Amino acid sequence: MTGIEDFTKPYGLVDKIDAFGYLDYLKSNPDAPRKHGKVVLVTADTPLKASRGEGKTTTTIAMIDALRERGIDAAAVLRQPSMGITAAGSKGGASGGGKASLTHPELIDWGLCGEMGAIEAAQNLLVSFAEKAIDEGKLDTVLVPRVSEVPSRSLRSTIVDAGKNNVAERVVLTPTCELMQIVVLSRSMDELAERVGNMTAGTKDGKGVKFNEFVDLWRITNILTDAVKPARTETVNGSPVYVHGGPFANVSLGIPTLASVEMATALHDVVIVEAGYGADAGAQKWLDIACREFGAQWPSAAIVVTRATTWRDDPDLQWRYPFHVERLENLGIPTFPLINLWEGEDELVDGLKATANELGFRTPIIGNLYRDGGEALAPQLDGFAEAVSVEDIPATPESHRGTPLRDNLNWVSEHAYGVPAERVVEKAGFEASLAEAQELCESVGMNLDDLALVAVKSPATMTDNDALPVQERTVTLKKVEPHTGAGVVHVNLTTSLTTPMPKIV
Amino acid sequence: MTGIEDFTKPYGLVDKIDAFGYLDYLKSNPDAPRKHGKVVLVTADTPLKASRGEGKTTTTIAMIDALRERGIDAAAVLRQPSMGITAAGSKGGASGGGKASLTHPELIDWGLCGEMGAIEAAQNLLVSFAEKAIDEGKLDTVLVPRVSEVPSRSLRSTIVDAGKNNVAERVVLTPTCELMQIVVLSRSMDELAERVGNMTAGTKDGKGVKFNEFVDLWRITNILTDAVKPARTETVNGSPVYVHGGPFANVSLGIPTLASVEMATALHDVVIVEAGYGADAGAQKWLDIACREFGAQWPSAAIVVTRATTWRDDPDLQWRYPFHVERLENLGIPTFPLINLWEGEDELVDGLKATANELGFRTPIIGNLYRDGGEALAPQLDGFAEAVSVEDIPATPESHRGTPLRDNLNWVSEHAYGVPAERVVEKAGFEASLAEAQELCESVGMNLDDLALVAVKSPATMTDNDALPVQERTVTLKKVEPHTGAGVVHVNLTTSLTTPMPKIV
Repeated sequence: MTGIEDFTKPYGLVDKIDAFGYLDYLKSNPDAPRKHGKVVLVTADTPLKASRGEGKTTTTIAMIDALRERGIDAAAVLRQPSMGITAAGSKGGASGGGKASLTHPELIDWGLCGEMGAIEAAQNLLVSFAEKAIDEGKLDTVLVPRVSEVPSRSLRSTIVDAGKNNVAERVVLTPTCELMQIVVLSRSMDELAERVGNMTAGTKDGKGVKFNEFVDLWRITNILTDAVKPARTETVNGSPVYVHGGPFANVSLGIPTLASVEMATALHDVVIVEAGYGADAGAQKWLDIACREFGAQWPSAAIVVTRATTWRDDPDLQWRYPFHVERLENLGIPTFPLINLWEGEDELVDGLKATANELGFRTPIIGNLYRDGGEALAPQLDGFAEAVSVEDIPATPESHRGTPLRDNLNWVSEHAYGVPAERVVEKAGFEASLAEAQELCESVGMNLDDLALVAVKSPATMTDNDALPVQERTVTLKKVEPHTGAGVVHVNLTTSLTTPMPKIV
Repeated sequence: MTGIEDFTKPYGLVDKIDAFGYLDYLKSNPDAPRKHGKVVLVTADTPLKASRGEGKTTTTIAMIDALRERGIDAAAVLRQPSMGITAAGSKGGASGGGKASLTHPELIDWGLCGEMGAIEAAQNLLVSFAEKAIDEGKLDTVLVPRVSEVPSRSLRSTIVDAGKNNVAERVVLTPTCELMQIVVLSRSMDELAERVGNMTAGTKDGKGVKFNEFVDLWRITNILTDAVKPARTETVNGSPVYVHGGPFANVSLGIPTLASVEMATALHDVVIVEAGYGADAGAQKWLDIACREFGAQWPSAAIVVTRATTWRDDPDLQWRYPFHVERLENLGIPTFPLINLWEGEDELVDGLKATANELGFRTPIIGNLYRDGGEALAPQLDGFAEAVSVEDIPATPESHRGTPLRDNLNWVSEHAYGVPAERVVEKAGFEASLAEAQELCESVGMNLDDLALVAVKSPATMTDNDALPVQERTVTLKKVEPHTGAGVVHVNLTTSLTTPMPKIV
């Protein structure tokens, strides 16, 4: 009998799994033993600062340890941390902490098995092929940015071929690039190759040219052979954790690969998916992109993590947390507040529960997860366990495919950020950018409105000014950039500075 | 009992070995069972074109298969191919061919286990730290180039922070960078960290500043945890092959890591080290840098590979092959000509042997290695087997450490390229470049003359014009660039265009 072990190989300190092969096997063998696990999103309040974690990863790890302690076969799927950011010291690791940790955080945080490096090489090779296509007269411009895993402020704007042709370029952070999106959204190597082929390399005589017009796609997929395999590691308590896909739900998808989640639901009863930064970033993207547009499984429950302080102490911003919980509940997703305590905050528990009650939340799950890990949670999970034991997998709401992008932007602003259509404003140049994107898509035989909307925005804000009263908040539309290979369209929102290439701090 | 298996972990299709750990174990346990294998160099005639292989890797593979067929415990150590070059299609794979192949060429050629990607990230992170140091007033200039595994003509000259500070930068191919050199030359993580710390990040007030003055070195070494481990794979006949270290002996070291070779000699009786491109590049670097200056083992024999056509058919260049064989023999290294036949050349064997005899060579080893693999060689290896069965490991000639660089350049020109001191000429600007390098070294407390000389030159030429008569050939000295971390100094030679950043072709 074939099982997941036939698709698994040790890879240093972790295992790597051929998820594409396993999903293909399940497809060809509909009677093979498998589970139909439920997906649970762990997301968070909108962070006050991008770099200050609420503890989503710690929560995810504590949750599966707690569920397994209760006899529930739970696993987690995490995104791979951005090694460049971790190594540069801008941010701590992204593999939990204290009793809610992974066994090999140093590996997970420091490049895992080279997945990001392979994606970087592959996207940069595409740019080199485009450069060669310019030499050969097949392209006039290159539209695909080079990538770097390492952050560097000065790479935001670069000029290559300096002193000769002086071509303006930009470099984006590897985890945010279109090829990473393609890895995240693909369920087979064939699909991946097709998507790479559909990337718009650049333009010739004003019209888009796809990579499949001049690149041997096997050269790219060969580089990605191991990068498309999720890594399996475990918590210090032995609970299974799959790591795959890039972070940065502010400027890209920032969700784990669909293949890794799909594989995990075939292997476990409950699969916790980390979706950060806040619910307006990662969770919004899981729901409105992965589920609605790419067939990922709609969550059977959600957990919205916060810190005791973040939740209550900034009067101007405290609307955000209840907004997120309510939005998810209104979508029919049982949503559990979870408060991750710092040391010395144990005496706040009663007050936090009272506030939660006043706000009409479900009873919050509260614990110091760094100190106590899953043990702090296990006794509090009756309601949660009930929510995920419902037999049916919930239906996914309808796709927005074909909805005019401008209408879809209004829809997201209203539903995800609480700003109605009349206060969605356009920055000078937005119309032109939209028209240009539409034309580019048409020139490669695609319709812009068929692409899934990726909101590009600051991770720390939902609107142009979250601190204003609700009726004064606006959302500004700035710029449109289609990724025809991934099948998404980026729209830059709000007045906050957003760049896919941070500086190291 | 501890053995190499305790330092070995499966890593997908290959094993990775903690060579640093094993070497450390041998050092602390002088009585542990180990071998004292002989090193054999496989090198080649100077290639007519960089991209046209003589078949060094194929020969290396065929040789160990043949030796093992004769009952000799032989292994090979190969450099990792440059995935960017392979993937871009500029060059075929670098893992042998036909019957003289590795079991997983697609893996070896396509990024192996992410070693190159990790080195790329680490060197680029150093550049980002240097950039931050500029912001903080600790540096005025950055001297360390960014790197890319993927070739791209337009990255030869770049401007970053465009539109603001417009900083001129350059990007070099990852396998050629100083950090790769450090990985190649280090025998422990401590040594590696010390060397990274000694890299000259840039200048402040005209003086060099080392990375150890402002970077936490563990951030860099953490990225390299797996990259410093050689991969163990095997030939299709099951002979062990270790792969580690970067190619490009034209513009960098281009030799396998010293740790991987040292480990292999503790495990096997004969260790074949591939040293390309031609003998004037890879072999020269193994002998004059690795052995003389960094304690690598002096070879007990050498094989100089050529094609039947290259050897004899260009009257202007046919001096090069005998020159290489003679040079190696004069160093006391038993040197075996090996002629790798193309299909249809079998009838040339007698003529080739006659020519070799006229030239005073040892009897050449001749075979179609693609078609016949090691079987073509095994019966011809009596003389070779005798050469490597001598008990003593040969002594290494004296170090050139402390010799003035200019004298060392004359010495290399005379011994490796056959051009005496009086015809070693200086291009305008060389003196200034030399003086600047001397000053920079002094400002970081080092002596330029203590650095090992890395000749940077075209792989296809040894002098300014190899086709001229011997008494008219010259070597031109162009530019000096110290790598204080690796402990080497690059000197660009000859008039051929050399760049560490090729275009894709």
